[in-house]
Amino acid sequence: MNVGIIGATGYGGVELIRLLENHPAFHVKEVYSSSQEGEELSNSYPHLVHKNLVLKSIDPIEIKKEVDLVFASTPSGVSSKLIPSLIDAGIKVVDLSGDFRLKDKSLYEKWYKKEGADADYLSKATYGLSEWFQEDIQNSDFVSNPGCYSTATLLGLAPLMVEGIIDESSIIVDGKSGVSGAGRSHSPLTHFSEMNENLKIYKVNEHQHIPEIEQTLSCWSGQVKPITFSTHLVPMTRGIMTTIYATIKEDCETEHIHKKFTKHYEDCKFVRVREKGTFPFTKDVVGSNYCDIGISYDERTRRITVVSVIDNLVKGASGQAIQNANLMMGLEEDAGLKIVPIYP
Amino acid sequence: MNVGIIGATGYGGVELIRLLENHPAFHVKEVYSSSQEGEELSNSYPHLVHKNLVLKSIDPIEIKKEVDLVFASTPSGVSSKLIPSLIDAGIKVVDLSGDFRLKDKSLYEKWYKKEGADADYLSKATYGLSEWFQEDIQNSDFVSNPGCYSTATLLGLAPLMVEGIIDESSIIVDGKSGVSGAGRSHSPLTHFSEMNENLKIYKVNEHQHIPEIEQTLSCWSGQVKPITFSTHLVPMTRGIMTTIYATIKEDCETEHIHKKFTKHYEDCKFVRVREKGTFPFTKDVVGSNYCDIGISYDERTRRITVVSVIDNLVKGASGQAIQNANLMMGLEEDAGLKIVPIYP
Amino acid sequence: MNVGIIGATGYGGVELIRLLENHPAFHVKEVYSSSQEGEELSNSYPHLVHKNLVLKSIDPIEIKKEVDLVFASTPSGVSSKLIPSLIDAGIKVVDLSGDFRLKDKSLYEKWYKKEGADADYLSKATYGLSEWFQEDIQNSDFVSNPGCYSTATLLGLAPLMVEGIIDESSIIVDGKSGVSGAGRSHSPLTHFSEMNENLKIYKVNEHQHIPEIEQTLSCWSGQVKPITFSTHLVPMTRGIMTTIYATIKEDCETEHIHKKFTKHYEDCKFVRVREKGTFPFTKDVVGSNYCDIGISYDERTRRITVVSVIDNLVKGASGQAIQNANLMMGLEEDAGLKIVPIYP
Amino acid sequence: MNVGIIGATGYGGVELIRLLENHPAFHVKEVYSSSQEGEELSNSYPHLVHKNLVLKSIDPIEIKKEVDLVFASTPSGVSSKLIPSLIDAGIKVVDLSGDFRLKDKSLYEKWYKKEGADADYLSKATYGLSEWFQEDIQNSDFVSNPGCYSTATLLGLAPLMVEGIIDESSIIVDGKSGVSGAGRSHSPLTHFSEMNENLKIYKVNEHQHIPEIEQTLSCWSGQVKPITFSTHLVPMTRGIMTTIYATIKEDCETEHIHKKFTKHYEDCKFVRVREKGTFPFTKDVVGSNYCDIGISYDERTRRITVVSVIDNLVKGASGQAIQNANLMMGLEEDAGLKIVPIYP
Repeated sequence: MNVGIIGATGYGGVELIRLLENHPAFHVKEVYSSSQEGEELSNSYPHLVHKNLVLKSIDPIEIKKEVDLVFASTPSGVSSKLIPSLIDAGIKVVDLSGDFRLKDKSLYEKWYKKEGADADYLSKATYGLSEWFQEDIQNSDFVSNPGCYSTATLLGLAPLMVEGIIDESSIIVDGKSGVSGAGRSHSPLTHFSEMNENLKIYKVNEHQHIPEIEQTLSCWSGQVKPITFSTHLVPMTRGIMTTIYATIKEDCETEHIHKKFTKHYEDCKFVRVREKGTFPFTKDVVGSNYCDIGISYDERTRRITVVSVIDNLVKGASGQAIQNANLMMGLEEDAGLKIVPIYP
Repeated sequence: MNVGIIGATGYGGVELIRLLENHPAFHVKEVYSSSQEGEELSNSYPHLVHKNLVLKSIDPIEIKKEVDLVFASTPSGVSSKLIPSLIDAGIKVVDLSGDFRLKDKSLYEKWYKKEGADADYLSKATYGLSEWFQEDIQNSDFVSNPGCYSTATLLGLAPLMVEGIIDESSIIVDGKSGVSGAGRSHSPLTHFSEMNENLKIYKVNEHQHIPEIEQTLSCWSGQVKPITFSTHLVPMTRGIMTTIYATIKEDCETEHIHKKFTKHYEDCKFVRVREKGTFPFTKDVVGSNYCDIGISYDERTRRITVVSVIDNLVKGASGQAIQNANLMMGLEEDAGLKIVPIYP
Repeated sequence: MNVGIIGATGYGGVELIRLLENHPAFHVKEVYSSSQEGEELSNSYPHLVHKNLVLKSIDPIEIKKEVDLVFASTPSGVSSKLIPSLIDAGIKVVDLSGDFRLKDKSLYEKWYKKEGADADYLSKATYGLSEWFQEDIQNSDFVSNPGCYSTATLLGLAPLMVEGIIDESSIIVDGKSGVSGAGRSHSPLTHFSEMNENLKIYKVNEHQHIPEIEQTLSCWSGQVKPITFSTHLVPMTRGIMTTIYATIKEDCETEHIHKKFTKHYEDCKFVRVREKGTFPFTKDVVGSNYCDIGISYDERTRRITVVSVIDNLVKGASGQAIQNANLMMGLEEDAGLKIVPIYP
Repeated sequence: MNVGIIGATGYGGVELIRLLENHPAFHVKEVYSSSQEGEELSNSYPHLVHKNLVLKSIDPIEIKKEVDLVFASTPSGVSSKLIPSLIDAGIKVVDLSGDFRLKDKSLYEKWYKKEGADADYLSKATYGLSEWFQEDIQNSDFVSNPGCYSTATLLGLAPLMVEGIIDESSIIVDGKSGVSGAGRSHSPLTHFSEMNENLKIYKVNEHQHIPEIEQTLSCWSGQVKPITFSTHLVPMTRGIMTTIYATIKEDCETEHIHKKFTKHYEDCKFVRVREKGTFPFTKDVVGSNYCDIGISYDERTRRITVVSVIDNLVKGASGQAIQNANLMMGLEEDAGLKIVPIYP
C-alpha cells in the first residue's frame, strides 16, 4: 500500500519516515510540503541523506493517484484548511494536528485561539485513541490522532473512569514533556543555552489538550468536571510523563485498582502496566510505541497516583498514527511497530 | 569569625566553601571529615585546587578551640550521633541533615527507617526556615536546616496557610529536582547514561520531607491533613521546582491571592514573587539563594497552582544554612549571599 | 537461525536485543549471564518488560544445542577465558570485547594491563571491520568485533591510507564519545551530577584502541608510525565523533580527495560520505548502523581534516556485530539493519 | 567608580552584571542598548528581576557624564561603528567584540566578511590577554578583549612558544565549546531538540579566531606558521576546552615542559597548572575566571598535548574584561573576581 506524508518537514513527518522504514505493508511513496516543494528533504534532515526524498506540492487530485492513505503532519490551523479537499478526493487520512479533535468548534476557537474547522468535517473525524476506540477507527476513513499529553493522560485515567473508581471532580494532571513536543521552529523557550539545565512550566490550566481530555473523559463518565492541568518542559528531547492525582470514591486497596488496570490492558500490545509499587521512567519507552503505566494508592490521603509515560513523537504522535492506519486498513495493529525502546 | 565545615566532602560542604569565599564576616578556618582525614580536599574536588584545604578529624574539643560555629553537612543518621557532643562543647551548630527536623522521634524512625536522635537534643533544635522563624533562629545556638523540597514547598504554601485561603485537606505537591539532590554517591539512579534524557519518579508518597512539611504546616493552621507528595528526578544538575495544587475555601480572585503573597514577602530579601500570571523557571535562581514564586488561580476548578523554585544546593541547603548562621550571629541576613543567579 | 547473547546485561547486550527484534533470519533464542543466572533480564532493564527473557548460565555444550551463533558481549578479560571453549564446541562467535583484536599478545598486555588470550585462538580470530575485510569475515567462524573509536577512526582513515595520500607520521586523532561507551558500571567519571554540563578528557595517548588502530593501518601501508590519540567524554549518551588530522604528501585538491572517499565507499550500505564542505553531526546516525564522513582540505596548512561519526553502541558495537554475523552466515550484509536514525 | 555596560541584553552583558555584583570598586551605574531602550532588562532576563535595571539609549556625551569606563558587549560589526565616538568622548573602553583584535584591517575583512574598523582606532586598541600583556593593558584606555577560543588556546600555547619548545608549523587545535558561545539569538544550530544529545563540528579551519591566535603567537616567535583549527559545539551551556597538539623541536621530558608552565604562571592568579599527568575538565572552572591547564608529552610520537579549559563567558569574555578593567584602573587584578567555580 502506498502512503504519503504531508508536512514531512516537521518532527512528526520525519518520525513517520523512520517508523515506516520497515513497515510490512505501507510504503512511503511521496512526501509533500507546501513551503519547500522541489527540495530534497535531506537538505533539512541530513540523517535522511540516503533516502533521496524530494518534497512535492500538495495537490489532492495528484495525491489521490499516488497514495492510498495520507498522514497529515501539518500544524494546527493548517490541517483544517487542507484536509477537507483530501477527504473530498476520497483519500484516507490520519491527521496529527489538533484541528479535528474537538467536536465543538467554539471550544476549539476558545482554546486554540484560531478559526475552527468546518463542522461537517469535524463530524466525520474519528478520535484515534487506539486502545479505546478501536472499532470506530477500524470503520473510519478519517482519523484525528490524539495529542501527546492527551494520549498519556487518557490511557492513565481510562480504567479509573470506566470503573467509576475516582471522584471525577478531583483530577489533577501534572504533565512533563521533552522539548521535541514544541516542534522544530526555534524560539526563546527552546534555545539550547536557556532550556538546558532548566525546568520550565508553561500554559498552566491553559493548554489546548485540556478540552480534548475532558471531551474524551465524558465518553466514560457522565460526571466529568473541569480538570486541573499544567505542563512543564524538561531538558530532554523525547518523552512525556503525566503524573495524575485523583481521590477515590470508596475505600479500596492498591491491589484492587492494579487488577483493573491489568485487566483492561491485558490484550493491548502497547500498554504495559507495571507491577504494583513500581513506576516507569520516560526512557523506558523512548523510540517505541509503548505507554507504560504505574499506579499507587495512598491510604493516608485516599488518593491514587497514576504515572503514564510515552515517547511524545511515537505513541504521542507518529506511532499512534501508524497504529490507527493499521486499524483503518485491516492490518495487524502492531504492523511495523514491533520496536524495542532504544536504551540507554 | 571562624567557622568550620563538617562533612566537607559532600556537595553541601563544597557549596558552603563556594558561598563563604566572599563572606564579609565568616572565615572557613577548617574543614573536617570522618573518613578522609589528612587528605587534600582538592583530591576529590579539583575545582578547589587553589584552596589548599586539608581535611581534619572531628574532635569537639579541638573544634571548639578553632571555630565559633560549625556547619554540619553530614548525612542523616550521622548528624544525630555527632552533633550532641558539639552542642555539649558549646559550639554553635547549623545542621544540614534531616536528623533534627522532626520533633517526634518515632515519626523520624518511621520515615527515615533509622534510629532517631536523642529527644533532649531534638528539643534544642530550631527549625531554620529563615523567612518564617527568624526570631527563633536569632535566639538559637542550634539550627536544623530545612530539607530542599521542604523549603520550596513551605515557602510556596505559607501565605496560603497563614491566610486560611485553602482547604487544608486538598494539598498536592508535585516536586521535581535536579540530580545533585541525590548527593555524590553514585548509584544506578544517577548513572549518567540512564539519567540523561530521562525523567524519573521516585518515592511516591514516601519521601522523608513529607512529615517535615506537615509538621511545619501545623504551625500555621490547626486543620492540617496528610498531603500528597511525589518527587521526580529531572536530567539537570541543580534546581528544584515544586508545583503545588490546592482548592480554595471561598471564592476569590487571583489578584487577592497574589497580593497576600507580595505582602508576606515584601521584606524578604530572598523571596521574589513574580508578577501575576508569570511563573519562574529553575534556571532563574541557579547559584543564588533566591526562592522565586508564581501563583495562578483557575476559576474552572477553584484551584490554585503555586510554583516555587530554588537552587537545591543553595536556598535548599548551604545558602539557607549561611542565612541562618547570619541570623544566629546577629549579622545582616544576606551577608555573603548577595549573589546574582548564574545565567545562562 | 537461533542466536544467543552472552553478557546480555551490559549495554552491548541489550542493544543486540533491540536490533535483532526485527531481524529476518536471526532469532534471539537465549540470553546468558555468568552473574545473574535465573533472573529476569527486565529486572535490570524495565524497557524489556514485555520480552520475558530469563538469563541462563553459560555452558558451551548446552549453548551448542540451542543456538547457531553466539554474540559475546562480555568485558575484556572475560572473553579471553570464555570464548575458547565456545570455539572448541563448534559454535560460531562474534566477540565484542577487545580480547581478540590484537594479534600480538604482548601488545595486549601492555595496553590492557591484563593477561592476554591464548595465541592459538588469537590467530583464529578475524578482525571484523566489515567494510574492509568483508571476504575474510565471510569465511570466518570467529570474528573479533572492532572497538568503537577504532571503527570511526579506521573508516575515516582507510581511503587516505590505501591511496597513499597522507604522511603516515602525521596522524592525530581527537576522539569524542558519549558516556554509554563507559558501560553500565557507575563510577565518579559517569556520575550524572558531575558528567552533566561537563567535558572530560581521559586516557591521553593511553587508550587501548591505539594499538588496534595502528595494527589495522599497517594492513594498508608499510609506513605506519605511532599515532597521537586522545579521547573525551561528551555529556550525551550515544555517539562518537573522531576528528582526524593529517598532512598530505603531495599537493592536491579537496575535490580529488573527496572523490577517493566516495569511490571507496560507493557500494557500502552503511558509510555515507557527505558532500564536499559539509560535516556530519553525531545525532545524524544515532540508533543506526551508519558511519557518516566529512572531509575538508586546508591549503594554508596542507592538512586534511576528516570527521567520522557513528553510534558507539551500533556501528561501534552491536550493529557491526550483526553486520559481521550476517556476512558469516551468508545473509545480506544489512539484514535487520535497515534502520533510519532516530531524530531528533 | 561608575561603569556602564553597552549591549547589556546579550550573554556577555548579563554576565558582567553578575560578576560586578560584588566588585569592591566598580558600580554598574547604567546599562545601555540600542534596540531595547526604555525597557526593563528583567523583561528579557527574569533572573535579574530584583535589580530594576532600565536600558538607556547610547549617547556618548551622556555616557561620559555617567560613567568612568564602559564595557562594550556589542556584536562584531557594531562595536567598530560605536566605539570610536566613545573613545573620542574620552571614555575608557573594554570592547568584548572581535572588531579591534586584528591589527590588519584586511585580515578582519577576510575572516569576518564584514567591513573592518578604522585603522586609527585599531592602532589604539590594546589586546587584552591579561596574563601576557599586563603592562600594556595597565597603560591603556582602550582594551580589545580576546576571543574565547583565543584565550584558551593562547594561554595553553604561550609557554611553549616563548620557550621555543615546539615546531611552530606543527600546531593543531581541536576546540570544543558549550553552546552559550553562540549567543542568545536562536538558530537551527542551537535549537534544543537538535543540539541536545548531539556533538557538532563547525567552521573547520574557517573560525575568525584563527588570525587572532596567529597574530598573537607572532608576538612570541618569528617562525609562526598557519595553524589547523577546528571547533565543536558540545551539548552543554558553558565551558571551552581546547586540546592542542604540537611536535617538540628537541628531545625533552614531560617534567621539563611542566616546569616551564608552572614557572610562567606561578604569579598568575587565574591560571592553574595541574599536576603532571592530570587534566582539567570544563566543569572545574565554570562560573569562575580560572584557566586550568594540563600537559602531557608522548615519547612515541614526540608530540605534546596541552589541554586548556575556561568558562567561555568568564575568562573567555566578561571575567577577563573585568580583569582588564582592573588593570586599566590600577586595581588589584582579581578585584571582584575571587570566585570559586560552581560545582557540581
